[in-house]
Amino acid sequence: MALNSEVLAKLRSIVGPENVLTSKEDLIPYSFDGTAALQQMPGCVVFARNKDHVRNVLLLANETKTPVITRGSGTGLSGGSIPAQDCIVLCTVKMNEILEVDRANLTMLVEPGVTTLQIADAATAVGLFYPPDPGSMKISTIGGNVAENSGGLRGLKYGITRNYVMGLEVILPDGEVLWTGNKCVKDVAGYSLRDLFVGSEGTLGVITKVLLRLIPKPAAKKTMVATFNAMDQAAQCVSDIIAAQIIPCTLEFLDRTTIHCVEDFAKVGLPLDCEALLLMETDGHPVVVNEEAAKMEEITRKNGALEVRVAKDDAEANKLATARRSAFSALARVSPTTILEDATVPRSELAKMIRFVEAVAKKHKLRIGTFGHMGDGNLHPTFLTDERKKDEMQRVHHAFEEIFEEAIRLGGTITGEHGIGLAKKDFLPKFAGNAQMRVMRELRRALDPNGILNPGKMFD
Amino acid sequence: MALNSEVLAKLRSIVGPENVLTSKEDLIPYSFDGTAALQQMPGCVVFARNKDHVRNVLLLANETKTPVITRGSGTGLSGGSIPAQDCIVLCTVKMNEILEVDRANLTMLVEPGVTTLQIADAATAVGLFYPPDPGSMKISTIGGNVAENSGGLRGLKYGITRNYVMGLEVILPDGEVLWTGNKCVKDVAGYSLRDLFVGSEGTLGVITKVLLRLIPKPAAKKTMVATFNAMDQAAQCVSDIIAAQIIPCTLEFLDRTTIHCVEDFAKVGLPLDCEALLLMETDGHPVVVNEEAAKMEEITRKNGALEVRVAKDDAEANKLATARRSAFSALARVSPTTILEDATVPRSELAKMIRFVEAVAKKHKLRIGTFGHMGDGNLHPTFLTDERKKDEMQRVHHAFEEIFEEAIRLGGTITGEHGIGLAKKDFLPKFAGNAQMRVMRELRRALDPNGILNPGKMFD
Repeated sequence: MALNSEVLAKLRSIVGPENVLTSKEDLIPYSFDGTAALQQMPGCVVFARNKDHVRNVLLLANETKTPVITRGSGTGLSGGSIPAQDCIVLCTVKMNEILEVDRANLTMLVEPGVTTLQIADAATAVGLFYPPDPGSMKISTIGGNVAENSGGLRGLKYGITRNYVMGLEVILPDGEVLWTGNKCVKDVAGYSLRDLFVGSEGTLGVITKVLLRLIPKPAAKKTMVATFNAMDQAAQCVSDIIAAQIIPCTLEFLDRTTIHCVEDFAKVGLPLDCEALLLMETDGHPVVVNEEAAKMEEITRKNGALEVRVAKDDAEANKLATARRSAFSALARVSPTTILEDATVPRSELAKMIRFVEAVAKKHKLRIGTFGHMGDGNLHPTFLTDERKKDEMQRVHHAFEEIFEEAIRLGGTITGEHGIGLAKKDFLPKFAGNAQMRVMRELRRALDPNGILNPGKMFD
Repeated sequence: MALNSEVLAKLRSIVGPENVLTSKEDLIPYSFDGTAALQQMPGCVVFARNKDHVRNVLLLANETKTPVITRGSGTGLSGGSIPAQDCIVLCTVKMNEILEVDRANLTMLVEPGVTTLQIADAATAVGLFYPPDPGSMKISTIGGNVAENSGGLRGLKYGITRNYVMGLEVILPDGEVLWTGNKCVKDVAGYSLRDLFVGSEGTLGVITKVLLRLIPKPAAKKTMVATFNAMDQAAQCVSDIIAAQIIPCTLEFLDRTTIHCVEDFAKVGLPLDCEALLLMETDGHPVVVNEEAAKMEEITRKNGALEVRVAKDDAEANKLATARRSAFSALARVSPTTILEDATVPRSELAKMIRFVEAVAKKHKLRIGTFGHMGDGNLHPTFLTDERKKDEMQRVHHAFEEIFEEAIRLGGTITGEHGIGLAKKDFLPKFAGNAQMRVMRELRRALDPNGILNPGKMFD
């Protein structure tokens, strides 16, 4: 490791020697994140326990021009927290306190290392609701959620992380502490710096506090599963549901491969003899939930559903939701390398996109499982591959290139919820265009002139 | 007028001579906006009819370092579209086409000069809903709404303009065309430039297209009015309603002065013998609306309401809502100068803030009417004054200084929905703090290095 010993000594004096890792075996777990086939050893790992730790680490890094990669639990799926060579990995998992739950103003103030699940639970404990539910919510941290602007299964009805961030404390690369936002429902004083930091993937500052918005807990929920002989029927269902003015809280789909992998893995009794499965949830007032569920059932039957199963109770509902939540893990079990993408298109183009993904997989002779957020147009085509097979990996790369191009052509985006990071860097210019690329670079230069934060990511 | 004749000749050749105004009497209507006591004659007014007009005007302005103030209908309440000396006023009201309503994806694409009401009506025409409803929505343009991130009466439940902007076409100061956003419900590819432009008050670029998000139209609505002997009772009602897990779409209040002015003006039969009036609306599924309305009525009675009047039909509901919407006009009738503010605090601090505003008015011997969005903590203390009385204007200024300081002290903001513009420039540094001020200035410099767009506003 090539971090000079003076920098290391200073880091030890800032956070205490027990909060600095340097041995190879200690560094290995921090050399990768949730993204397949990406790895790089850092110079060291530093655990910050408070704002001053972060501040002093950044001051030192900026002065010595040492790259800093901030990370939480490292569950990201775009390589956003893959280290740079000889960098400091600044890990915020030990800043993990829920500082305040304010029931009068429906807010929660937390440190960046609190997990999404802890936030959801703390909201539930006072009868409130924190809707964003990324797949990794059991271990993902809110700092990472905010940096990546994470999505989840409830995006269509409830929005994503950005919609629940009211304020942020951010340490800028030069050590300056910036607070943006407050508990006001409305605030238009100045540029929305909060919104600039949300989704900036650790390239503009390090988040040290997050003020979150909570909402009332929906009183009731109904979960159902419908299976189809053809993906087009499922897609038509989704269109018909929206046309009926219903915005379900969950509208997920699994293709045949995914269904079989999930059933093998989770044994929840999913119907196996079908090409597509829709998982649908409606929540809210019990009367509305019952009406919407009945309408949704009717719409699925009209579209030729093979079977419609309405969960009888919470236990069955949880089982069905868990089946969908385990899709990625289930697919990951059946191959040495699982590469998950999140191309997203306007909802009206989803059926077209799914057919395109199937054709691309066939053309490149690749095994693929596709699932995702159908109501959001957010697909997760997942290639089941093996990174040791160079030739196959090459074909996977070509397949993604074609998928992203098609997503862009259909008015979509190359990433609906995972971010750019390292994994999609090459595809960003085509999606964003020259003007956005230039402006992003200029904004980054204005905030981080030495380029110490997460260098080499996004557009760097 | 001091714009040089060469620039003027070029402007005429860009947009056609019929789209350039230069005579004094033609310029006067563009020398002010909705903000009291602010006026400045521009060098000329230019009407853009398309994107190329905007592009070429900006190219010319940037080359000749001529200031450009973009404006729509000029209804702003923070002096955001007050001209700079010898500037070009770039008016986008003639770019007023609704380009597309996409029912499958629930979006609408419009030019910046379309009015908020036209958008609301076009959404209603296809059974959809565009919630943001700023007070001036009958004439305000969407370009101005986006630039100011306008609020309205439905903010608490439905959010503000920002929450409905999915994409923007923006012309940068150097003439480059930037498109940001798309029809995807989720998109995390790169920084959210869209969110940076929303609320940037015309200082970063000129908006030439807006892609808006629509939602299903609520099936039912119920409107009611409750009166109280004391403002504290009304404030407690609001807290109790939120604690009962109800998020009404409207939760507005009027103080005694405002009630009397409104009744004099609009003759809707408001109860006059009270200190505070709450206008409450719940919308959604009919069953939910009935339940929530009943609960809200019960809560108001429990808090000592003098009278609760539930609108019997749409006509009566509209009358009551119109009464609230006419508050500003009604107050404006009774004095030569009406200065409206929008200090905003966390909901829990609202009663404190209202008492403070009353005390400040008394201390400075000022006549004041206060109304606003109680559910949002967004107050509109409105001083009824006369700009010709220098001494009184001085006292108004001191009063606002004290009000803003108190809002900041209570964790609030100096502007909930009107923006900074010229009117609140002096108060921004104290609210935003050094770090935010520095970052905003750097972002602005990165995008508009010559400072041609809306110079002298916000923090410039």
